[in-house]
Amino acid sequence: MLLRRFYDDKLAQASYMIGCQATGEAVVVDPHRDTAVYLRAAADEGMAIRYVTETHIHADFLSGSRQLALHTGAELLLSAEGGEDWQYAFAEEAGARLLREGDHIQLGNVRLTVLHTPGHTPEHLSFAVTDGAATTEAMGVLTGDFLFVGDVGRPDLLEKAAGIVGTMEAGARVLWKSLKRFEELPDYLQILPGHGAGSACGKALGSVPSSTLGYEKLVNWAFQCADEAEFVAKVLEDQPEPPVYFAHMKRMNRDGPPVLDELPDPSRLSPDAVAAHLREGDTVVDLRSRGDFASGHLPGSLNLPWGQDFTNWAGWLLPYDAPIYFLASDQDQARGAARDLTLIGIDRSEGFADIGALDWWSAEVAPLQRTTVIDWREADRAMEEDDALLIDVRSLTEWKEGHVPSAAHIHLGELREGARTLDHERPIILYCRSGNRSAIGASLLQAAGFSDVRNVEGGVRARETIHS
Amino acid sequence: MLLRRFYDDKLAQASYMIGCQATGEAVVVDPHRDTAVYLRAAADEGMAIRYVTETHIHADFLSGSRQLALHTGAELLLSAEGGEDWQYAFAEEAGARLLREGDHIQLGNVRLTVLHTPGHTPEHLSFAVTDGAATTEAMGVLTGDFLFVGDVGRPDLLEKAAGIVGTMEAGARVLWKSLKRFEELPDYLQILPGHGAGSACGKALGSVPSSTLGYEKLVNWAFQCADEAEFVAKVLEDQPEPPVYFAHMKRMNRDGPPVLDELPDPSRLSPDAVAAHLREGDTVVDLRSRGDFASGHLPGSLNLPWGQDFTNWAGWLLPYDAPIYFLASDQDQARGAARDLTLIGIDRSEGFADIGALDWWSAEVAPLQRTTVIDWREADRAMEEDDALLIDVRSLTEWKEGHVPSAAHIHLGELREGARTLDHERPIILYCRSGNRSAIGASLLQAAGFSDVRNVEGGVRARETIHS
Amino acid sequence: MLLRRFYDDKLAQASYMIGCQATGEAVVVDPHRDTAVYLRAAADEGMAIRYVTETHIHADFLSGSRQLALHTGAELLLSAEGGEDWQYAFAEEAGARLLREGDHIQLGNVRLTVLHTPGHTPEHLSFAVTDGAATTEAMGVLTGDFLFVGDVGRPDLLEKAAGIVGTMEAGARVLWKSLKRFEELPDYLQILPGHGAGSACGKALGSVPSSTLGYEKLVNWAFQCADEAEFVAKVLEDQPEPPVYFAHMKRMNRDGPPVLDELPDPSRLSPDAVAAHLREGDTVVDLRSRGDFASGHLPGSLNLPWGQDFTNWAGWLLPYDAPIYFLASDQDQARGAARDLTLIGIDRSEGFADIGALDWWSAEVAPLQRTTVIDWREADRAMEEDDALLIDVRSLTEWKEGHVPSAAHIHLGELREGARTLDHERPIILYCRSGNRSAIGASLLQAAGFSDVRNVEGGVRARETIHS
Amino acid sequence: MLLRRFYDDKLAQASYMIGCQATGEAVVVDPHRDTAVYLRAAADEGMAIRYVTETHIHADFLSGSRQLALHTGAELLLSAEGGEDWQYAFAEEAGARLLREGDHIQLGNVRLTVLHTPGHTPEHLSFAVTDGAATTEAMGVLTGDFLFVGDVGRPDLLEKAAGIVGTMEAGARVLWKSLKRFEELPDYLQILPGHGAGSACGKALGSVPSSTLGYEKLVNWAFQCADEAEFVAKVLEDQPEPPVYFAHMKRMNRDGPPVLDELPDPSRLSPDAVAAHLREGDTVVDLRSRGDFASGHLPGSLNLPWGQDFTNWAGWLLPYDAPIYFLASDQDQARGAARDLTLIGIDRSEGFADIGALDWWSAEVAPLQRTTVIDWREADRAMEEDDALLIDVRSLTEWKEGHVPSAAHIHLGELREGARTLDHERPIILYCRSGNRSAIGASLLQAAGFSDVRNVEGGVRARETIHS
Repeated sequence: MLLRRFYDDKLAQASYMIGCQATGEAVVVDPHRDTAVYLRAAADEGMAIRYVTETHIHADFLSGSRQLALHTGAELLLSAEGGEDWQYAFAEEAGARLLREGDHIQLGNVRLTVLHTPGHTPEHLSFAVTDGAATTEAMGVLTGDFLFVGDVGRPDLLEKAAGIVGTMEAGARVLWKSLKRFEELPDYLQILPGHGAGSACGKALGSVPSSTLGYEKLVNWAFQCADEAEFVAKVLEDQPEPPVYFAHMKRMNRDGPPVLDELPDPSRLSPDAVAAHLREGDTVVDLRSRGDFASGHLPGSLNLPWGQDFTNWAGWLLPYDAPIYFLASDQDQARGAARDLTLIGIDRSEGFADIGALDWWSAEVAPLQRTTVIDWREADRAMEEDDALLIDVRSLTEWKEGHVPSAAHIHLGELREGARTLDHERPIILYCRSGNRSAIGASLLQAAGFSDVRNVEGGVRARETIHS
Repeated sequence: MLLRRFYDDKLAQASYMIGCQATGEAVVVDPHRDTAVYLRAAADEGMAIRYVTETHIHADFLSGSRQLALHTGAELLLSAEGGEDWQYAFAEEAGARLLREGDHIQLGNVRLTVLHTPGHTPEHLSFAVTDGAATTEAMGVLTGDFLFVGDVGRPDLLEKAAGIVGTMEAGARVLWKSLKRFEELPDYLQILPGHGAGSACGKALGSVPSSTLGYEKLVNWAFQCADEAEFVAKVLEDQPEPPVYFAHMKRMNRDGPPVLDELPDPSRLSPDAVAAHLREGDTVVDLRSRGDFASGHLPGSLNLPWGQDFTNWAGWLLPYDAPIYFLASDQDQARGAARDLTLIGIDRSEGFADIGALDWWSAEVAPLQRTTVIDWREADRAMEEDDALLIDVRSLTEWKEGHVPSAAHIHLGELREGARTLDHERPIILYCRSGNRSAIGASLLQAAGFSDVRNVEGGVRARETIHS
Repeated sequence: MLLRRFYDDKLAQASYMIGCQATGEAVVVDPHRDTAVYLRAAADEGMAIRYVTETHIHADFLSGSRQLALHTGAELLLSAEGGEDWQYAFAEEAGARLLREGDHIQLGNVRLTVLHTPGHTPEHLSFAVTDGAATTEAMGVLTGDFLFVGDVGRPDLLEKAAGIVGTMEAGARVLWKSLKRFEELPDYLQILPGHGAGSACGKALGSVPSSTLGYEKLVNWAFQCADEAEFVAKVLEDQPEPPVYFAHMKRMNRDGPPVLDELPDPSRLSPDAVAAHLREGDTVVDLRSRGDFASGHLPGSLNLPWGQDFTNWAGWLLPYDAPIYFLASDQDQARGAARDLTLIGIDRSEGFADIGALDWWSAEVAPLQRTTVIDWREADRAMEEDDALLIDVRSLTEWKEGHVPSAAHIHLGELREGARTLDHERPIILYCRSGNRSAIGASLLQAAGFSDVRNVEGGVRARETIHS
Repeated sequence: MLLRRFYDDKLAQASYMIGCQATGEAVVVDPHRDTAVYLRAAADEGMAIRYVTETHIHADFLSGSRQLALHTGAELLLSAEGGEDWQYAFAEEAGARLLREGDHIQLGNVRLTVLHTPGHTPEHLSFAVTDGAATTEAMGVLTGDFLFVGDVGRPDLLEKAAGIVGTMEAGARVLWKSLKRFEELPDYLQILPGHGAGSACGKALGSVPSSTLGYEKLVNWAFQCADEAEFVAKVLEDQPEPPVYFAHMKRMNRDGPPVLDELPDPSRLSPDAVAAHLREGDTVVDLRSRGDFASGHLPGSLNLPWGQDFTNWAGWLLPYDAPIYFLASDQDQARGAARDLTLIGIDRSEGFADIGALDWWSAEVAPLQRTTVIDWREADRAMEEDDALLIDVRSLTEWKEGHVPSAAHIHLGELREGARTLDHERPIILYCRSGNRSAIGASLLQAAGFSDVRNVEGGVRARETIHS
């Protein structure tokens, strides 16, 4: 038997290829849209992808199942569980076979058995994996967003992100039942989940790729709950704000995720041309580091450094149906950003300019803008002397754990809205944990017309360790 | 003044960027369609591309002028010379400014002066370059396909490739007049031509990037001709066969070359999927080396190794309006091939499979086919014992310079046609100079259904140096 | 807790980084010598490597433990178990701390507990991993070469590879005891082994990265044995030939593996220069595919295509204390090969020539040599008509499972020795499973002076599927 | 004939390969130490490098002639002209053949004729190139640092950089004679010089790769001088400060430039390890952009962004005989910097840490330091209110052309020395043209212990165009 795990760091998301080496047949479970990674792996392993399936209708990324099935000629398998409201609307059109509790996916000696494990979502499936060459017992379960390492999939997303009122508690209760059912299964089963640390689909995910059912029974908080009531209370408590794009993802994944023939390859443009697009109202994203952006940037551009949290903030802050242009250190950065955006369904990355060396640019294209970067000493002085307003852009949970007393709280994802009522001439100082999120916020406020925006380098972590 | 030369090895074609550093303005002359190279250079040099122009309606590659002007907002400048039949049909639609003898392109201190230099084509322009910061005298001339290092642009292409009967001799005569006019210009002028060694636009081009007018007067055969008659006779003698795609290029470049937003990025497919496309009649090109192809390949695929002559043989042998799929060593190879094909207007590179490791493939997809690779001893035996037919696929010129006595001659570009009347069961042995072209030919004959095709490794060069 | 697995495909070897995210401290277990991968991971994860250790004295690759400790300032931890003969000879010189059963490695909240698990080797340790933030119970065990997915570490290597006579059975018996001890541990423990499919350290390793103890008890053949005697018999049966370099690795890893400051970066040389080295008796390895090599190669060069089995055959066939030169498709290939060789302690990769295009080379450097590639029909004819000798170069196990009746068997790793007594003028035909190993063998025999060597393309797999 | 020019942007230096395609033999003139570029070109062009030579003992980069000759087996050819003091001290040891006026280098049909052209240096040679296949007349001259496009090689370096007192005027006079001799040669000769714009070997070099003798006679200021006296006065006027490393280069190139077997490949280290080296007094260079460096950097590190001027400032500011460690965005950057440093003989690039993401670093390794980046408004206020000292770090020529009235002038290359006497507690503000050089200066002063250093972003160019 072959088992390969694919982990996308930016999505904190795991997909799997499982196959039988005797017959060279494989299934891919929960693929994202950069489907080339599965094709490359299949080529490396000498496998033909015969089936593509997914555990549930994802909310945090756009599904690549339909696309991968199309590009390989594989059969698409989708959940038929969950009731009328949670059927895949495009299943028939895509020629998919529907899966129900107890169904099998057979690959030579290897078999996946379908388990209906609702809670995170109504239609959620898990797949028990049996290596028939060794035994008739399963060796593990692909649990998707049902059971994580140290956590369970949150049942509140449908209500909070997709706006289906009243589903939160009902979801928590069926999730409890799914857990109870798993409690009966053998301890030795591997638990192979759909997310790792950093995903917004759970609140306490660890950085260990997989677990075992016995160990989860021992340490996972959910299995320690005495009864359903305790579980329901706890699982709905302190979940992080779901990103706004989750509702959109959910809808697209249910109604039919668009298929990409190839990843977008943004055209190389001159900086003039990108500046012209910005003047016409298009979104221009500067992918460089916050330090480079602060040194000099095109007024009106948004700074989303291409790093770990890029996809997340892009989902909060970028438009879905409008062209996007990049200012990038080099072409690889622009291509990488365009690729990452497709994972959450933002496909119109149309062009970029390489601004490795901005030195010559200045007067040619437009006067450049700086971001004022300050430390806490300067921040304190500015609040005292200049009547500057201090804004904390971290999550509500972080804010509750402690913040600078004089600060106001606006979550970065809501800063554009939240700043509407503020005086555009008043100096604004932003901070977060390290200076990353507040730098994004600063670019956003500058683009929104605030004339004096300052960013506290180092954020709350820097009050003692950063010396100027 | 800034002067940069861009040389594409596979096209053997030169384009130029000339600019004024005081004002940061530049013109690009004779760009191909991989316009990113000019945008990257402009960014590196701190130049804004204000104008794009070309010396003439090219026959050997698809012009990137229109595309580059669109992507930069530069003004497009096109020749108005050459008479009614040789006007750019898309000039008005593209908002181009027309150029005539004596016109100027001004870039800060730098000026290009338009010279009408017909012969290779009727509308052909050259551009004299003056660095006004230094002097009012020109420092050199961009001569396009009028005057090369050691040769002149051939005046027979219109007739031979584009089929405009009777233009060959007339062209040769006006070319003579253009040369006579240049004979009056100062010796110290740099000659900056549009092609280097290997181009089919001339017959004796050297591997020196540029020359001077005085030196060409001394050594270029054209300047040594006593009179027009001698020149006309010589210039029409022994020109290589023009590739069949030249006629197509010419027409597209006159009527309006299509504009690419981005280079095609062929989708990664499974080998099965590529094999399925082949079965449906699509063209499948195997880009690997001839050695790898001979070891085992998909029956029906054409072997065009991605190297020096790729563009040339692709122009002869690939379709223009049909999808093309690749079998490639890796993704870079497939992307590179797709890029090269766009230079000659073949834009439908739709997918590829990475067949780095073909080992596992065999029975899954289709039985693989080998090419029999032999040496001259085996070839001689096969002709004697098996009634094998020996075919020389080199150019007519090479054939005339000497060939194996028992061989028949069919130029590789015409092998598909030429082999139609041959017995498909008779063993066929192919040779060329080194084994490259005959390997392409062997793949072509195998795809055409010949059951026993053998390739002489090492070609005519190998009769003594290759030991088996 | 952080747990990351590093898998080297060519070695089929797994190493691990385990750390505590609260304190940013990590240990690396069983590192190979390309230590940059651990440093890169530590940087990505924000971890400082505080400890480096290994499960045992490896025989199949050169340990990177000492090197990684030196480059990071981490403490080196080595086994003190196993008795006098199996002590690390360099432990004191390297300032290592010695580990015994019951010792701990503490990283913030995370603890590794040392278990002595002899059998594969006398000093072998396993490490139970406990995430103290969650529980005082272990979540899994790093089992090194003691317990694999579906198999156990072979106890016969010391005798067969290192020549320590009489250790085979004793090893098998203590291995049985180690297993019995593990049988008492909880089913839910993850089993995180040191090798995957393809390693010569076991005979039936699966392509699943990890397992659980409960599942292994259920399916692993070793746990199914009724008693010690049955186990000892089975574990010594049908083990693959250990590569000759294992003895050398073992000695170096015990006495002190040499430390690399950087991976060797072979100098770019001209093909002439490489040919000159070959004439002087140095080893020249052609890294290209067997198809390219067959088309034309430098006489005397050895063809080891840079792919999956490169490290394995290099260990069998290349010298340890002599310079090695490469002929490569490009620089990346030469660098990759040099890197791979360092993993097994071959560090003198001194130069390479890029022979992407061999066309021009022929007469300049040396007459090129071809390899005759044939199919089974041709092989049968040659045996009948030319008195050709057919040699099967596969493993003994493969040979026993079935072979061509008329063939002789010589394992590829012993072909150089085994061919000494054969007639150098008699035609020799080689085959293996697919044509890969026999191509290596053909290059080896050609280099050894055999004048007529032929390779059966497609090997035993091709008797029906390959058509010429 | 083949003629290829190699241009290194950072050195602004040109080297050439000239060969005969009929025989496949080539010479390389003025190679730098990244000799792989010549070997790659020779492979591409099918040339064997038979000779390596150089026009003179270079002062601005370390010669790669000896190394290239060693790696190819080519004959090394060195100037015997220039008198006793300017003989290559290692010529005999390296087995070089000595060249004198009138000697020839013959490559098939192609011939280089040696011309002694002293002035820039006493032993300086030029090489007239004749393509014997075409004519017995030369087509051009490789003029090294004798004659540039629009300028001549400065004759003051020996005195100013190498400290050979009294040679400046004598050099200028023999240079005049060399020019007079060239005035007799034909106008049509191509002039192929050893440097382009940006080199410190001349003062007015253009960005046109080559010229012609006739055109230079027309526009080069040197040819316009009425007599020797006028020429001598002008050529010694306003030459830029020669970098301090020139004296060192000169000596090494005369006495025997060290030979590299391979480019240094700095080891990947943890940031901790690099910080430890810094604490022990080693040089640590942060290669990131000035914006990233300003945001947070290791106290004591020097910021030399890896870009256009990297080699130049490295020559001024880095030690020759001590280990150097890098903090880099990624490994490619560290490798690129190590490569560039070898071009000027700085070979001890021993390690690097990848600090792509500095976020996690802070307290672990050391408190990070920020650089205060200000605009002119803030600078003016600081000078008035905080008694800040304003320092202009540009060249003397730029300073003379205009500067901020209240500023002091210290050339960046002398800032370490020049700042010794300043008060370490007084605020210091640095500026240059754009903010690049002053950012380097700021890092240097911070490392030297100045407690309050501020950099004016945008430099003198920014007084109007940068808005905060």
